[in-house]
Amino acid sequence: MNFLGVDIGGMSIKVGIIREDGSILRRDAVPTEVGKGDQLDILRRCIELCKRLVQEEQLSLDDITAVGVGSPGTPDVAHGILIYAANLNFRNCPICEVLSTALKLPVFLANDANVAALAESRIGAGRGCKSSVTITIGTGLGGGVVLNDRVYAGFNGAGCEIGHMVIHTGGRPCTCGRKGCLEAYVAAPALISRTVEAAEAHPDSMLAALIRREGKVTGKTLFDGAKTGCPTAVNLLNDYLDDFAEGLGNVINLYLPEKIILGGGISKQGESFRAELEKRVLDKSFNIGSLPTTQVALAELGNEAGIVGAAFYAKDCLEDHIGSFHEGKNPCAI
Amino acid sequence: MNFLGVDIGGMSIKVGIIREDGSILRRDAVPTEVGKGDQLDILRRCIELCKRLVQEEQLSLDDITAVGVGSPGTPDVAHGILIYAANLNFRNCPICEVLSTALKLPVFLANDANVAALAESRIGAGRGCKSSVTITIGTGLGGGVVLNDRVYAGFNGAGCEIGHMVIHTGGRPCTCGRKGCLEAYVAAPALISRTVEAAEAHPDSMLAALIRREGKVTGKTLFDGAKTGCPTAVNLLNDYLDDFAEGLGNVINLYLPEKIILGGGISKQGESFRAELEKRVLDKSFNIGSLPTTQVALAELGNEAGIVGAAFYAKDCLEDHIGSFHEGKNPCAI
Repeated sequence: MNFLGVDIGGMSIKVGIIREDGSILRRDAVPTEVGKGDQLDILRRCIELCKRLVQEEQLSLDDITAVGVGSPGTPDVAHGILIYAANLNFRNCPICEVLSTALKLPVFLANDANVAALAESRIGAGRGCKSSVTITIGTGLGGGVVLNDRVYAGFNGAGCEIGHMVIHTGGRPCTCGRKGCLEAYVAAPALISRTVEAAEAHPDSMLAALIRREGKVTGKTLFDGAKTGCPTAVNLLNDYLDDFAEGLGNVINLYLPEKIILGGGISKQGESFRAELEKRVLDKSFNIGSLPTTQVALAELGNEAGIVGAAFYAKDCLEDHIGSFHEGKNPCAI
Repeated sequence: MNFLGVDIGGMSIKVGIIREDGSILRRDAVPTEVGKGDQLDILRRCIELCKRLVQEEQLSLDDITAVGVGSPGTPDVAHGILIYAANLNFRNCPICEVLSTALKLPVFLANDANVAALAESRIGAGRGCKSSVTITIGTGLGGGVVLNDRVYAGFNGAGCEIGHMVIHTGGRPCTCGRKGCLEAYVAAPALISRTVEAAEAHPDSMLAALIRREGKVTGKTLFDGAKTGCPTAVNLLNDYLDDFAEGLGNVINLYLPEKIILGGGISKQGESFRAELEKRVLDKSFNIGSLPTTQVALAELGNEAGIVGAAFYAKDCLEDHIGSFHEGKNPCAI
């Protein structure tokens, strides 16, 4: 069986023809061009890319079983509608209806973080596990939860918001409106703000000197500063890792996944970062005696996680009879 | 189909013959007598009660499909062993092996909070919902998670530890070794400690006078004090409800269950307590636009939740082929 995996991002639309084992037959991408036209124009670019890839592979749409779409924002998976995605400027966009009309195929919509987590779980760092939580640390802290080998996205399909778990009640303000969310302590903007604050409080530190020399602060600055042995940087990194581990300890105590998989920019700090977090996390999770414990792993898949995961998601929906396309009862099925 | 539902508690062993719809054909209880003999003696009392009930109902063990056992502590569900239960003084107790040998029936073991949550989900406050989180507030804060109409107990079956989710990093010490867990702010001992602390800090308050008059502090004292309009009590109750709502907001952002069901002593504060928590929780959970939101409900089942839930659990395990009893591969199947 072949699937089309579609990954709609703020910068580019990626599409792949994916075999059921997750291998990629063919892939390509086009710019999303959010500002150019309306949301239907973006979907038209999706459809053109899907058709072109199938043609280039010398297949027809009859050779495709279904289409999976991963998108940022909040999907209404039952109705195939993207309710809202700020960076796409989408509002109540009937993605499944538009794509399934044009392609004459069943189309399934899910959040991009969830489908990427599904790919990571099946053929990445979580292969062989039935449950994993993939946490992507970037401008936000996104989470994708896979339980019993399926995406778990809550009763309404909106997806789990691991970044918006409060660990410091009344603490740093978060974009979601709460105070003290994990995201407000460990996502890249928080890491950068905390680095700047520490350097301002300790202008004579090596960290401050490093920032003056480089002329900017990134998510890497604190790690580089700590490597020089700068006490200001070492202390802040210690606090940062403690906050992160506090959040991961909560994730373990609530989901008890076989693996927590770390992705995104900050996870590029690599094995020492992973090992340090795992050590702190084990101290914070509930003692379960002789039972196996959750492992912390680094994500293994790159940019293709979105298209592969979207294809896996479409396959799962067909297998589990989620979305009654064949009975014409689902509004996604035109 | 009939099932035996067994609920082993610190004070009593409860057993019921349960129909597959959850109705109780017959039930009885005997004292657990933890101090009398060893853990096998407790299991003998379980077995005797099971046999007696079946006989009294004029059935034979052949009329029973399977046995479900709910127990406190940490179970190794795959091997049918109770690893540890402090208040039963059980350590590595092979419950399923012992019971299935004696009763010649498949026996399935789970944590008591999880099976009680399953009963609440099927025939209690969660009926009609596919996902719910039941939170029982007593000497601890226990949670049972039902996702996709099945108990979710983590990859190793040890169960989710919702009470041990840190909401105040570095805050009040918890019995689990972490600091700032939800349990350390809202379970009955925490509520009582916080009430005593507030009264000691404000010896002239009506709350302090109430405590002197009653000669004791219970989980009810703070609620009674707040009803008199005492500012000390009102402020603390406000903080208490905020902490509780912070934890429930996290539960919603992580699990997105259709319902959160509150049980245990403090939930007896009733509808005003529920409504006040729901209002605060809605402010704290992630905005999901036009999608339906999680509701907060009060538990509806009483003492029988344990035996009914244990029976449902056994039925689910048979249906899902969890534990390969019929193939003799599971060490629980003697």
